[in-house]
Amino acid sequence: MTYTNAPELPAPDILRCAYMELVVTDLAASREFYVDALGLVVTHEDDEAIYLRSFEEFIHHNLVLRKGDEAAVAVFGFRVRSQEDVDRAAAYYEALGCEVRRSEEGFVRGIRNAVRVQDPLGFPYEFFFEVDHVERLAWHYELQGAGALVRLDHFNQVYPDVVEGAKYLDDLGFRKTEDIQDEAGTVFAAWFARKPTVHDTALTGGDGPRMHHVAFATHEKHNILYICDKLGALRQSDKIERGPGRHGVSNAFYLYLRDPDGHRVEIYTQDYYTGDPDNPLVTWDVHDNQRRDWWGNPVVPSWYTDASRVLDLDGNLVPIQEREEDSEMAVTIGADGFSYTRKGDTEEGFKLGNQV
Amino acid sequence: MTYTNAPELPAPDILRCAYMELVVTDLAASREFYVDALGLVVTHEDDEAIYLRSFEEFIHHNLVLRKGDEAAVAVFGFRVRSQEDVDRAAAYYEALGCEVRRSEEGFVRGIRNAVRVQDPLGFPYEFFFEVDHVERLAWHYELQGAGALVRLDHFNQVYPDVVEGAKYLDDLGFRKTEDIQDEAGTVFAAWFARKPTVHDTALTGGDGPRMHHVAFATHEKHNILYICDKLGALRQSDKIERGPGRHGVSNAFYLYLRDPDGHRVEIYTQDYYTGDPDNPLVTWDVHDNQRRDWWGNPVVPSWYTDASRVLDLDGNLVPIQEREEDSEMAVTIGADGFSYTRKGDTEEGFKLGNQV
Amino acid sequence: MTYTNAPELPAPDILRCAYMELVVTDLAASREFYVDALGLVVTHEDDEAIYLRSFEEFIHHNLVLRKGDEAAVAVFGFRVRSQEDVDRAAAYYEALGCEVRRSEEGFVRGIRNAVRVQDPLGFPYEFFFEVDHVERLAWHYELQGAGALVRLDHFNQVYPDVVEGAKYLDDLGFRKTEDIQDEAGTVFAAWFARKPTVHDTALTGGDGPRMHHVAFATHEKHNILYICDKLGALRQSDKIERGPGRHGVSNAFYLYLRDPDGHRVEIYTQDYYTGDPDNPLVTWDVHDNQRRDWWGNPVVPSWYTDASRVLDLDGNLVPIQEREEDSEMAVTIGADGFSYTRKGDTEEGFKLGNQV
Amino acid sequence: MTYTNAPELPAPDILRCAYMELVVTDLAASREFYVDALGLVVTHEDDEAIYLRSFEEFIHHNLVLRKGDEAAVAVFGFRVRSQEDVDRAAAYYEALGCEVRRSEEGFVRGIRNAVRVQDPLGFPYEFFFEVDHVERLAWHYELQGAGALVRLDHFNQVYPDVVEGAKYLDDLGFRKTEDIQDEAGTVFAAWFARKPTVHDTALTGGDGPRMHHVAFATHEKHNILYICDKLGALRQSDKIERGPGRHGVSNAFYLYLRDPDGHRVEIYTQDYYTGDPDNPLVTWDVHDNQRRDWWGNPVVPSWYTDASRVLDLDGNLVPIQEREEDSEMAVTIGADGFSYTRKGDTEEGFKLGNQV
Repeated sequence: MTYTNAPELPAPDILRCAYMELVVTDLAASREFYVDALGLVVTHEDDEAIYLRSFEEFIHHNLVLRKGDEAAVAVFGFRVRSQEDVDRAAAYYEALGCEVRRSEEGFVRGIRNAVRVQDPLGFPYEFFFEVDHVERLAWHYELQGAGALVRLDHFNQVYPDVVEGAKYLDDLGFRKTEDIQDEAGTVFAAWFARKPTVHDTALTGGDGPRMHHVAFATHEKHNILYICDKLGALRQSDKIERGPGRHGVSNAFYLYLRDPDGHRVEIYTQDYYTGDPDNPLVTWDVHDNQRRDWWGNPVVPSWYTDASRVLDLDGNLVPIQEREEDSEMAVTIGADGFSYTRKGDTEEGFKLGNQV
Repeated sequence: MTYTNAPELPAPDILRCAYMELVVTDLAASREFYVDALGLVVTHEDDEAIYLRSFEEFIHHNLVLRKGDEAAVAVFGFRVRSQEDVDRAAAYYEALGCEVRRSEEGFVRGIRNAVRVQDPLGFPYEFFFEVDHVERLAWHYELQGAGALVRLDHFNQVYPDVVEGAKYLDDLGFRKTEDIQDEAGTVFAAWFARKPTVHDTALTGGDGPRMHHVAFATHEKHNILYICDKLGALRQSDKIERGPGRHGVSNAFYLYLRDPDGHRVEIYTQDYYTGDPDNPLVTWDVHDNQRRDWWGNPVVPSWYTDASRVLDLDGNLVPIQEREEDSEMAVTIGADGFSYTRKGDTEEGFKLGNQV
Repeated sequence: MTYTNAPELPAPDILRCAYMELVVTDLAASREFYVDALGLVVTHEDDEAIYLRSFEEFIHHNLVLRKGDEAAVAVFGFRVRSQEDVDRAAAYYEALGCEVRRSEEGFVRGIRNAVRVQDPLGFPYEFFFEVDHVERLAWHYELQGAGALVRLDHFNQVYPDVVEGAKYLDDLGFRKTEDIQDEAGTVFAAWFARKPTVHDTALTGGDGPRMHHVAFATHEKHNILYICDKLGALRQSDKIERGPGRHGVSNAFYLYLRDPDGHRVEIYTQDYYTGDPDNPLVTWDVHDNQRRDWWGNPVVPSWYTDASRVLDLDGNLVPIQEREEDSEMAVTIGADGFSYTRKGDTEEGFKLGNQV
Repeated sequence: MTYTNAPELPAPDILRCAYMELVVTDLAASREFYVDALGLVVTHEDDEAIYLRSFEEFIHHNLVLRKGDEAAVAVFGFRVRSQEDVDRAAAYYEALGCEVRRSEEGFVRGIRNAVRVQDPLGFPYEFFFEVDHVERLAWHYELQGAGALVRLDHFNQVYPDVVEGAKYLDDLGFRKTEDIQDEAGTVFAAWFARKPTVHDTALTGGDGPRMHHVAFATHEKHNILYICDKLGALRQSDKIERGPGRHGVSNAFYLYLRDPDGHRVEIYTQDYYTGDPDNPLVTWDVHDNQRRDWWGNPVVPSWYTDASRVLDLDGNLVPIQEREEDSEMAVTIGADGFSYTRKGDTEEGFKLGNQV
């Protein structure tokens, strides 16, 4: 199915991206990565699942790792402003003709009266309000390591048609904050916010629906550097896929990791306030070599090509639809692609160290 | 000529690497890089040369940029403990059969009674004690930018035979602190200190004599990140060749830049104390993917292949001698090379993001 | 007048604290402080006023310095979601019986169709939507110093009756995030948010209405330390009133400065997300020595006693009303006051270094 | 006894301050402070003593905590360049008429063939070369907390006559790097280095011989801030005596803690290179309010008055001799004292927040 128009119904008032449920194939290996290496806080764990949260979180969890046969994303969870907004979500997606399920006891521990839908783009979304409160460990510095993850920051979704997806998210109440285009108007990626940061989710143009990454925030840049140092010390540096670096888009400092199943996790800090309704949209030229990395460091191909499959509400893999428009990788680093450091340079301003 | 044995004479007591004289082809472009972008302090400048120092320096300069037709390195300057040590240097190199020149007025401004030699490896070295003192700007935070360079940290020299070069530096009184070898004992690089840091100079195996880089220190890692951010803002991100990252060797945080002539400049912070005579030598396996970058990020080929030519005492380019032993690039990232994250992994632990 | 009940009208939808207008007695001295020392960006300046903004701001200004005979606060400016909300604000305050003025051309440059009121507590508030956009300098690292101020974070107001003031702000749509109380329920201070940080404004119990401070945010803690270092280098360390330190309340890192007229400016970074409607209220015991400074460092008396007078809409000083309840300073550090590090310690856990 | 002249013998070649032996009254409480809170690495522990080191150390220990009835300092340990230098130390102090003891098996674990002396000022000094090597944990980021202590940096000793003590240390081969004087030439404190930092030890004028503090280094300032945050989280903020802050003297960032017995520990980072023989001496005016804290924050009285007693070689407390010259506290913050922010200000430039 594809998305065309919003229903004649109010969209739910989404507060923020709140949690992701990942299916992982080896719970012990995932625990080693998310708990021992990254230091996320365990709210609950049993033989089937581990519920994790960041240090400044007061709701039950930001990440659920559930044991399964095939690595995938079970849900993108959004918190809404009230229980009525959960109802609004159900009605909204029913009007869209989507599969909608409601669970009074909740689909996962700690959350009740939630609604799950398979949205028009094919992604599994959950909307919830009722949630167990847990201790906000913001002041518990004795528990926080040098790389403490303090917030869930955003999701990133891969989808073939970014313009179609952007209309869907705009109708759902998201504000577009930044995007990447070429001169012909092809859109390669776009960023969408509910809380006043650069995004709660983003769309990356590509074969989808797939999950590109889930991102946690640290307070400072050195926290991210420490995570790299620690992964080196653990001889797990091959978990580092890209970065650390400074994004052009969002102006945030970033690092991309891959968990034992290949799910991509970003560590992210210091984007900017976007809460005003007239917040200026920032559009980047796809050929600007500083758009993805402000320092011009190359984006590794796997970052463009790899992503996690998503599940429908019955737990089956959602089929992949191919992107028809140009791929960002092809137009920037492929045989016919190009990137510049300074627009208009007669010599293309490739970096000396450029490898691709 | 090659180095075999030390003369039967005392070596000069070298305090530290103190300054480098670079020949640059466009003084204005170099000023833009070293002063406007990197923020080094101008001690003196005229139509022919710019004398620069770091914020915590009290001697006249750490870098001389001299206008010339061909980019090259005119001298590696070392400060010695006394004027007698300058005499010892002259005698030492004369006994070695090297070209030795003395200048009472000094080869450059601010330094007097210095000796220059072309050493047995072919590099131009200067030894000096008498120097003009200038204000140490350590407390002048109002002048220091967010990326303040506070010390000259080290030189790095490219030379074909690292074992031969290491013997020369050892005889000259340097302590070897770290090296990179393979299982057969081939030495790919080694680090040598006089002041109690990891190095005042290093030898990188390769065609030489050439200058690999000159390194300045910042106080903290965020100062180095800022330099990247600023180069991005100036649309000069193509000056960033490699990094930022964490070295395995030295445990320091690093960034490699290329100046407008291609001279490589490292920004560096936080290695460790090496001043005890029994300081443990650290030997790295050339196939350890974390030796050059603790996070396993790839070393760009230009970093291995490019270096600056050096001048003899008459200002002529010193001829290049090819390295006969294996090259580090070939044994690690070439068709027959390999690197591991975890020694003994059956699958080679290449990073997902590895591009080479 | 005092505040009792909200009018039967919708409150304006306030986005965030947006700017403060300060009357200063020496524009050149103030410029030296806010521009030369703190590095705020000049949007506009003339003989009568200087309009300043932070590096990530896209609206015309966050601070107006206006020349006048007596130092005071002319207005606390809040941005609302739409022009209709400006109308709502006018109606709301008219219904409250407050003095309300509207200006189509705007009370200050860059803002149009704004409303100013003297609120029930006596404070001058402005509500506006229409504003000139200016360049968001977030990516302009070449302009940002080591202590770059990136956002206006919050206001802090002194008022005798915190409970009364809290009701007023609650009715106006603010969420209370933290407060300080004693066991008897006396409220000494409270924090109130619209954007999802710990506050857009706060009430500090004391003689008022007065302005306690206006706060700007940096990205990292070292940026704040640099501001101290720079003030030392400028021999202006006597501008530092309190800190730097870690707040208990808000968990943020802080520094308090005093401008040439004695207006207090906080530099602040890294509080936590508060945007959920059920965000847990944090209540601190007034005797907890870590509430104001998590490290137990003493609060200087001037911080409790000094504040800036505020002006009514005609530019006259608003009369001061004395606080009748206990003062926080008296109950914590005075002859009959006490503070503890560990509640219930038989010895009062005063710091060794405690001076008061 | 007092110090007048050096013996006609070569002084030992001291490398660096290397370890301190502290007598503590409650080993478990001290362990909680040094290991659990500060994170020092345990090399060895038993019922009588705990041997601790910093993360970049390769010798057996930097701190020995030995159980005893009365808190005191048993020894200031210095490492020398060779075993011959240990002999030189013995001869040097014997020539000075000092009590000298030698132990082949070593006075403490991990060290052999050491010499202990009670020096002319009354302090117990140890000189050693032979020492067990242990693993340098510099690369073990997985073990390093957010406040990792990476090096022992310096000692600080209290002694009545700083000029006399300075002559003794100068004869012993230390270089004076900074001092505090008044216009009449009274010396209040002085700093002395062997390794090329600002000091390996310092003399603080006051009743002595006593130990003022022992200092460990972190890599960055945020590591020190974290230690404060953690102590707050552990409700041990009363262990913080002074700081954090920026020193004027040394330009380092600092924090002073008090251990469970009241021994003072400094956490310190980022002073400057002092290894050249003509390194400029920095002399501070005792009335300069930025000399002790560059931000002008007040020095707490306990910092001036409290210090640890030292033991003679039989383990008895060394008697205290009173300082006859002015005390720094009296001339700066007492009734007749004064400090300025800007020399020559007609109004004394006291800080608004000044409490003393």
